[in-house]
Amino acid sequence: MIPKLIQKIQKTQAPICVGLDPMLEFIPQYLLEEEKKNHGATLQAICQAVWRFNQEIIDNVFDLIPAVKLQIAMYEQWGAEGVCLFQKTILYAKEKGLIVIGDVKRGDIHSTAHAYALAHLGKTEAFGKKFTGFNEDFITVNPYLGSDGIMPFIQICQEENKGIFVLVKTSNPSSGEFQNQKIQEKFLYEMVAEKVHEWGKTCPSGDYSLVGAVVGATYPQEAKLIRKLLPHSYFLVPGYGAQGGKAKDLKAFFHTNGLGAIVNSSRGIIAAYQQENYKQFPEQEFASVARLAVIEMIQDLRHEILN
Amino acid sequence: MIPKLIQKIQKTQAPICVGLDPMLEFIPQYLLEEEKKNHGATLQAICQAVWRFNQEIIDNVFDLIPAVKLQIAMYEQWGAEGVCLFQKTILYAKEKGLIVIGDVKRGDIHSTAHAYALAHLGKTEAFGKKFTGFNEDFITVNPYLGSDGIMPFIQICQEENKGIFVLVKTSNPSSGEFQNQKIQEKFLYEMVAEKVHEWGKTCPSGDYSLVGAVVGATYPQEAKLIRKLLPHSYFLVPGYGAQGGKAKDLKAFFHTNGLGAIVNSSRGIIAAYQQENYKQFPEQEFASVARLAVIEMIQDLRHEILN
Repeated sequence: MIPKLIQKIQKTQAPICVGLDPMLEFIPQYLLEEEKKNHGATLQAICQAVWRFNQEIIDNVFDLIPAVKLQIAMYEQWGAEGVCLFQKTILYAKEKGLIVIGDVKRGDIHSTAHAYALAHLGKTEAFGKKFTGFNEDFITVNPYLGSDGIMPFIQICQEENKGIFVLVKTSNPSSGEFQNQKIQEKFLYEMVAEKVHEWGKTCPSGDYSLVGAVVGATYPQEAKLIRKLLPHSYFLVPGYGAQGGKAKDLKAFFHTNGLGAIVNSSRGIIAAYQQENYKQFPEQEFASVARLAVIEMIQDLRHEILN
Repeated sequence: MIPKLIQKIQKTQAPICVGLDPMLEFIPQYLLEEEKKNHGATLQAICQAVWRFNQEIIDNVFDLIPAVKLQIAMYEQWGAEGVCLFQKTILYAKEKGLIVIGDVKRGDIHSTAHAYALAHLGKTEAFGKKFTGFNEDFITVNPYLGSDGIMPFIQICQEENKGIFVLVKTSNPSSGEFQNQKIQEKFLYEMVAEKVHEWGKTCPSGDYSLVGAVVGATYPQEAKLIRKLLPHSYFLVPGYGAQGGKAKDLKAFFHTNGLGAIVNSSRGIIAAYQQENYKQFPEQEFASVARLAVIEMIQDLRHEILN
């Protein structure tokens, strides 16, 4: 899947993914009202409004970008019905040729990690048949439980030609509480990065490995070090835009050939229509505004990284 | 919710929870065959078989125990349909008066952690109405992202009278890769425990706090230290039985009054009918065998902990 991701990044010249994280406050009022008329004040109405929102965003950006990232929490919050919508959105994005990253941050051990891996990257078997679960192309994984929590994902990645991004240095303000603690002259995130390197050696894929790393755009200093430790891992970079990460700081995340990282933006794209600089557009234009925001983001990144 | 948990533990004299982690290999063949006849070789048939399995287990053990723990990965592996079953099983367990622990090990930041907290412990709001998601009483949470990833859960716990168990020292063999790294004379798990203590101080609940800790039965030495660091946190203890944790090692997890911890067993109970010592029972008796296994576990723990 890494070669496919690279191919799509090269084709679009856009090392970015759009975060389909449909918080309720991002959904235009008119969509909610229309679906309330259709289905009453129900969960079904909410999920239908979010579904239309996701579809329109995808329709308006799919040709510009290689991938979308879905934050599953924004679907889980609507219970099982929201999780159905998560599954449906993945299917739709794939039909449009997009690579899908499930931002699920799962982390557990042995048979449980195996079950998560089957759920999100693989297939379960019963009655001699195979069943597909959510079927993302990549997911994010939490390393706190050690190798037992990672190897089952790698096994499925190898079988299914998928990939994972392990949380190394997250974008949030308090990420240093544990991640930046020093262990014999090394930060914990360095030690995690070294493990990612070790895990990655078991599953090379072209110039990279199937094991990538999540490295927050808000920590360019750390990224410089992690880039050195992980020459063969793709980086998934959250925290650009709304969280404060700037394009000029992102160079360190990439290799000099402009590859090696994919930068996510969620609210900066899907809720761009709510921003001051797009306020001339009515909310009905939310998806075309998302397209404009994607173009702006691509230009911003190309200027800093590809030049 | 902690006082209710304690009350139920005292009433049942059983500081245990049964793990409803229905791996396919635990489901009796006759249930799968019957549901295959009803629904064909479909996901629906699998979920229906697992649903009957869960119901029968609950029916046969609910009067003996305070709580069940559901490992969501074992439901997610069947995609959205499996997640519906997760939601339905929680509802059923609650109707039977059981406390429900969602073993979801979620961990993310800010609005995302908030969405997970609403999904699993709280209620979402739309159209001026409140919607309930999965509605567990407790969930497990991963600390790797620091306070940003924990505080949103605590906020919802306070609003809804719920609780969390933060992963401190997990039960798996490789848990020490990061958790037992030394940071200035302290192990990482100690540092996490100290944070749990700090977070717990913001939300006391009787003699305990709303923030508990996951401490694996397989690490009694570490548990001794964590018990001292966390006098006011309830422990959720996985790893008893199949993973190698023994009752005689569990004393250190409890306070001298027999409170302070709840020990989980999953396959040791729900798949007891597959064990050598219960092989005289036909698979149709899986739920009565689960009951026998619960009684055996209670006696085992009472003998070591309550005496």
